[in-house]
Amino acid sequence: MAYPQTAFAATSVHDNSLIGRRRTTVCASTLLYQLQVLKDTGRYDAFKLKWHPVYDEPTVVWPIPNHLFWDSDVAKWIEGACYLLKHKAIPEVDHAIQELVEMIRSAQQPDGYLNIHYTVVEPGKRFTNLRDMHEMYNCGHMIEAALAHSDFYRNDLLLAPMIRYVDLLCETFGPGASQLHGYPGHPEIELALLRLHDRTGDPKHLALARYFITERGNHKGVEDESYFLWEARKRGDDFSRRPAFYPKEAPKCLWYHQAHAPIIEQPTIEGHSVRAMYLLTAVADLIRIEPSSSQDLNTALYRLWNNMTDRKMYVTGGIGAIEQWEGFGQDFFLPQGTDEGGCYSETCASIGVMMLAQRLLQIDLDAKFADIMELCLYNTVLTSMSHDGKGFTYDNQLASSDESHSKRSEWFTVACCPPNILRLLGQIGGYAWSFDINQSQQSAVVAAHLYISSSLKFSIGGQEVHITQNGGWPWNGDIDFVVETGSVAVTLKLRIPQWATTIEMQPWCPDAVREKGYLTLPAEWIAQNRAFKLSIPLKPRWLAAHPFTNQNTVSLARGPVVYCVEDVDNQWVQDHFKGVFVNPQNSFEEHQIVDDKTGDEYVGITLQDGARNLPELAAAFAPMLDAEKLKASLEHAPPVSALHFIPYYFRSNRGGKGHMRVGLKHAS
Amino acid sequence: MAYPQTAFAATSVHDNSLIGRRRTTVCASTLLYQLQVLKDTGRYDAFKLKWHPVYDEPTVVWPIPNHLFWDSDVAKWIEGACYLLKHKAIPEVDHAIQELVEMIRSAQQPDGYLNIHYTVVEPGKRFTNLRDMHEMYNCGHMIEAALAHSDFYRNDLLLAPMIRYVDLLCETFGPGASQLHGYPGHPEIELALLRLHDRTGDPKHLALARYFITERGNHKGVEDESYFLWEARKRGDDFSRRPAFYPKEAPKCLWYHQAHAPIIEQPTIEGHSVRAMYLLTAVADLIRIEPSSSQDLNTALYRLWNNMTDRKMYVTGGIGAIEQWEGFGQDFFLPQGTDEGGCYSETCASIGVMMLAQRLLQIDLDAKFADIMELCLYNTVLTSMSHDGKGFTYDNQLASSDESHSKRSEWFTVACCPPNILRLLGQIGGYAWSFDINQSQQSAVVAAHLYISSSLKFSIGGQEVHITQNGGWPWNGDIDFVVETGSVAVTLKLRIPQWATTIEMQPWCPDAVREKGYLTLPAEWIAQNRAFKLSIPLKPRWLAAHPFTNQNTVSLARGPVVYCVEDVDNQWVQDHFKGVFVNPQNSFEEHQIVDDKTGDEYVGITLQDGARNLPELAAAFAPMLDAEKLKASLEHAPPVSALHFIPYYFRSNRGGKGHMRVGLKHAS
Repeated sequence: MAYPQTAFAATSVHDNSLIGRRRTTVCASTLLYQLQVLKDTGRYDAFKLKWHPVYDEPTVVWPIPNHLFWDSDVAKWIEGACYLLKHKAIPEVDHAIQELVEMIRSAQQPDGYLNIHYTVVEPGKRFTNLRDMHEMYNCGHMIEAALAHSDFYRNDLLLAPMIRYVDLLCETFGPGASQLHGYPGHPEIELALLRLHDRTGDPKHLALARYFITERGNHKGVEDESYFLWEARKRGDDFSRRPAFYPKEAPKCLWYHQAHAPIIEQPTIEGHSVRAMYLLTAVADLIRIEPSSSQDLNTALYRLWNNMTDRKMYVTGGIGAIEQWEGFGQDFFLPQGTDEGGCYSETCASIGVMMLAQRLLQIDLDAKFADIMELCLYNTVLTSMSHDGKGFTYDNQLASSDESHSKRSEWFTVACCPPNILRLLGQIGGYAWSFDINQSQQSAVVAAHLYISSSLKFSIGGQEVHITQNGGWPWNGDIDFVVETGSVAVTLKLRIPQWATTIEMQPWCPDAVREKGYLTLPAEWIAQNRAFKLSIPLKPRWLAAHPFTNQNTVSLARGPVVYCVEDVDNQWVQDHFKGVFVNPQNSFEEHQIVDDKTGDEYVGITLQDGARNLPELAAAFAPMLDAEKLKASLEHAPPVSALHFIPYYFRSNRGGKGHMRVGLKHAS
Repeated sequence: MAYPQTAFAATSVHDNSLIGRRRTTVCASTLLYQLQVLKDTGRYDAFKLKWHPVYDEPTVVWPIPNHLFWDSDVAKWIEGACYLLKHKAIPEVDHAIQELVEMIRSAQQPDGYLNIHYTVVEPGKRFTNLRDMHEMYNCGHMIEAALAHSDFYRNDLLLAPMIRYVDLLCETFGPGASQLHGYPGHPEIELALLRLHDRTGDPKHLALARYFITERGNHKGVEDESYFLWEARKRGDDFSRRPAFYPKEAPKCLWYHQAHAPIIEQPTIEGHSVRAMYLLTAVADLIRIEPSSSQDLNTALYRLWNNMTDRKMYVTGGIGAIEQWEGFGQDFFLPQGTDEGGCYSETCASIGVMMLAQRLLQIDLDAKFADIMELCLYNTVLTSMSHDGKGFTYDNQLASSDESHSKRSEWFTVACCPPNILRLLGQIGGYAWSFDINQSQQSAVVAAHLYISSSLKFSIGGQEVHITQNGGWPWNGDIDFVVETGSVAVTLKLRIPQWATTIEMQPWCPDAVREKGYLTLPAEWIAQNRAFKLSIPLKPRWLAAHPFTNQNTVSLARGPVVYCVEDVDNQWVQDHFKGVFVNPQNSFEEHQIVDDKTGDEYVGITLQDGARNLPELAAAFAPMLDAEKLKASLEHAPPVSALHFIPYYFRSNRGGKGHMRVGLKHAS
């Protein structure tokens, strides 16, 4: 059960946790809200293949037409909706899906091709710009929608046309003399093809995914040059005209697409961060499916993951410091906001990190992957949707600034992020749990990666296994497990986060083994202990930034939740908290809060004293600021009476000026 | 005597100081070396107006032809040489100047026009691209060369043709209906025109300078749009094709040229830093010449200066964090090197800061301007030439990195910096001293801004004033003054740097008044005290960076000299000193050093202990680095036995790996 998109079907998420409440909001509000936006913007009817005025509009991000992602916007909504309909029936959503599928089917060309832009706007030019035009990205998302649709509706109304389209791709791309030796500018289809192969067993689906992955970055791919450059020359591109997201001319920017070198040779993670995550997710899947022929990829995958988490990841799980290419900066370049030189931290990128982490857990059960997965979920990902489910972020900076407030938007021209939340929350049970069944031995190994109140149910030889976890995570560290296994031998592995200083269990399991961050409870013990409680104490702690980031800041965390300060609770602030500095030695108060306006429950934290506000430094100092005078000046800085922290994900839900910050200067 | 280019003629710089020795090197080596480069590269003969193979080469920095600055390269060499020939006769240099002037004269077109590119490469296109093509920048430097030439040779062989060219410009540009309402993309001619006006008294020279300064940034300059955009449309520019130095399309990048708004409305200093400095230098001159009609400019000038020095200047006096546009980043964005996200700190930009500071001192005698002037001189500017006078830097980063070593080059395609050092060192006496003469009262006010062993000589009504300063500055803080004034009443103002904690005088002047950083010695006292000693104790001190820079670093300074660590003296270093952190409480040893290889004398400083080396941080920390664990890890970091500092300007003279750093992490 390697894929959360299928594994989630064995789970049910209870309504009474933070994640459960967010899913309730999504079902009650977001699905229908987004459906209405799809209709209002023209996306809903786009597969009717009529001209839309948007197609004439100048591009916002040259050379990408503004409507280029419409196929995937619809597909991602369908996919997310199909997951969520399992949780709650919504007739209007159900009806829309069926209508959309009919329109998509009718848009397919006789040879299987299926793409709005190249059918309506630029017919005859298909597959001439793999680098920029997202044809296969759209196709990948439609394959994923088709798989979700097929699972929910138990028919192949969407899957069958997508398989026909993939047949065309399998003919078109590959190493053969008559084939194009290309690969997508924006990876996504690779992971979709591997999932399709999991369903169809058709070896050519696996082969095409492997081809796309291994051919990528080949410097001598076609006529002794990289495919993307060859293709651009064939189009007659003027290389001096740089796409908006390229800092230099095209030949120097293949790293944007992770196509500057074969993946196995890439020393560091580079470029557009969503592309990188989708690509590496497929790489991880391929390693799991064909481990023996993927040794080099495995080495590269660990190298790139480590480079990312050790040197290019924000404390919120966000990745991508650079707005221009929505992607990675240099090692340790992690400014908190625009006024510090950057910070992008795209929602979809952190969803991609979760996808990749979930895949890595399938090939290597190490809690370090799950820790990052959870970090992303409760911080960068959760903050991307407003409390009412109708506002979204694209980037998730760690500090606001006058240049860039941390407000949410109703929608985006490039609308990848909003429907991605649907998809993720719809299948979140598949991230919380994983399980391996051994039919012949009537046994199973179950892992709980995330502590979300939920249950897992599956059967082996007619025996039903039913495991429930219940608790108030992430606010309360007690998790109650109830396990019913019949005669099945179930081994249970519970993740112990790296930040947990102590754990308790009641009753204690004397044979429990703790390895790579998982506590293994043997099947024999489980058979004797149908109910037990795991306790992971949650208390505020300060996180630091690596010294090489030049962020001499500390960030407050409690369990997996990273905190921020916001002006709503600290109304004196005038400078986006840029001048606040704190002494980590000082003590906290925790408060159980039910927010007046939103009804959301969370733990707020107050630092009663120990915070000060940077004084106006005498201009005469600069630029030859005397270190001793500065120190004295800081020591006499005016104190801040109290500093109130809220979970970062909850920011920008209650009005205010939009002043917010995660990392606060460390008073030394 | 407002202009150092003329004032310097009243001074003579002694050979026995750091600056004196650099001038000796320039006369013995650099002038002839650069002359040879001018010849080898084709610049020397370019005014013969023959085709050169370089004119066919693809541009390195599109759309700027590689040879576009050749006029100014030659002009700046002539100008610098004319200053230095006053100090030391060099027949080969003298001969070359005369030959070059002949070639320049022969290159002038019948209507006065004089420019290599538009005569040879693109005839007929003159004045069609003021934004990019540096026509008037070249002209400005040629005017300055002509003034220097006229002063030294006492003829107008170069000045006369330049005045003819300026006549053409005066006809071509201005507010008249038949005139072009343009201004230069790269300011320089403005300050040259003001100096020319100082010589000629011709009001149209002043008027053209004022027009260029005040018309700049007019959004409705021509046909309701900015001149540069109007001009680009007229050329048929494709705006999506961005010049290499524009991060966005042309209409969004007028700030690069300080043309995004009229100067009086600009809130912050932006764009290419050399352009900004040359422009503001002319603004300061204009304010001095016509104070009553320049109130708004005066307000803007202070605002922009303060923004620069308080928020956009490195501890070395360097400006410009951003390589792409060779210019200013956001407020407080001052990373030390490429691997931290930037650092450019161009040589010419700091020379420009010195020019501007020197002009500001003429309108407001405040030592804060002189402090910055001196900071630039002894650090960013002095480091830009190797000890042998044959190696040069363009950018002057504060830390090396694997991406960007701090080596010097023999020359550059865009060769603005190397001859700029000649010009500056040639006229440095004019920066050290300024003097105002009151003929009718037989009095003078003399200010000593820089403590460079030198003398100043001028006469009033037949009485000679001769003031000498002698000392070992910047290594020794004692300066001996000898003043001969005849019957002239000379008031002397001595700069007391802001960092000077105490000063002594022997004999003490009881009537001395200290105001805005200058110690005024009344004429009566001077008349009684022909010799005295000023002592400004020099001892190592730590400078800090403003907290908003996110540089939690300290830099060592002693007097005006900023220090760095270099691998030659600290051979254990592997990481460009990125992981070294120091405790500013620890004590120093100072050493008088005469360098084996170079013979250069300086004070070296050793921090005997208190420096440690960042340990390899456990990867498991990242990105949720526990603040307490990090602190413990740093406290147990391996000590560095001793840390040897050398003056920053002296780096990269003795081989080594090129590892160097100014700001070291502050151990807290």
